[in-house]
Amino acid sequence: MPGPSRIKEPKKEIGRVSQSDLFGLVGYNIKRAYMYMHRDFRATLDELQLTQRTFSVLSIVVANPEISQSAVTAALAIERSGTVVIVDELEGRDLILREKVPGDRRAYALRATLKGHDFYAKALAAVHRHEERILGNMNSDERQTLITLLQRVQNEED
Amino acid sequence: MPGPSRIKEPKKEIGRVSQSDLFGLVGYNIKRAYMYMHRDFRATLDELQLTQRTFSVLSIVVANPEISQSAVTAALAIERSGTVVIVDELEGRDLILREKVPGDRRAYALRATLKGHDFYAKALAAVHRHEERILGNMNSDERQTLITLLQRVQNEED
Repeated sequence: MPGPSRIKEPKKEIGRVSQSDLFGLVGYNIKRAYMYMHRDFRATLDELQLTQRTFSVLSIVVANPEISQSAVTAALAIERSGTVVIVDELEGRDLILREKVPGDRRAYALRATLKGHDFYAKALAAVHRHEERILGNMNSDERQTLITLLQRVQNEED
Repeated sequence: MPGPSRIKEPKKEIGRVSQSDLFGLVGYNIKRAYMYMHRDFRATLDELQLTQRTFSVLSIVVANPEISQSAVTAALAIERSGTVVIVDELEGRDLILREKVPGDRRAYALRATLKGHDFYAKALAAVHRHEERILGNMNSDERQTLITLLQRVQNEED
């Protein structure tokens, strides 16, 4: 990548290993950060018997009462079959309700139960503590800059 | 997260789904960006019969002639057993050589063959084209800012 750089990348040595091209690749750095955060995120959710996917689906349903399963699938960019399994699980735990939509035999409207709302608030608080642990040395401007740049990666094709 | 924000996050609607807390989490945005980039990255490497891991190991070995297997493992933050399998594969393809280190029965020094250097140059060019495809709307300052912030995520504990 040519061009000047405003923020200098620190010259990096990992043990006695000199920097390879990897550390200049956006993709490799995204992967490292993902692997790093994901370990603590998973441990955080484990304590609540949640996975990344069940947490995400619950979050979308809490924020969007009466949402359809297909809209959940689209919002999370996951497989439709995955959504069905997760909705089944969340319904079995009385965290969400699934209602048939009159006039559309295949559609379901989802909403969180009261128990689901309470449980989600608790899970979200745990996730915020997790982000605070991992990102504690980054101020809120820096976190927002990181989010904004990451969203430009994922929205390239949209 | 309290505090003012210099760069405003665009209010986001995915289909008819209103924004949930997810899109304000650094971790979720890293995951989305990772999944998005990884799909194209994997397709790029598939054409060269490389995986993310074999590409990474080859890159480290090219940049660090005579490196030990354990230093590769440390640099990439992967499992030791994973490195052994990958080194075997790269050696079988005549891309790297593994030499016993005199005086240390368990240590090997790794270096890329001439064929390995040529192949790696070709693979790196393909990976740069992949990054250009996915990040084409981001200038080099923005990419560097993204990398710098991501490295602060992964280096928190170091």
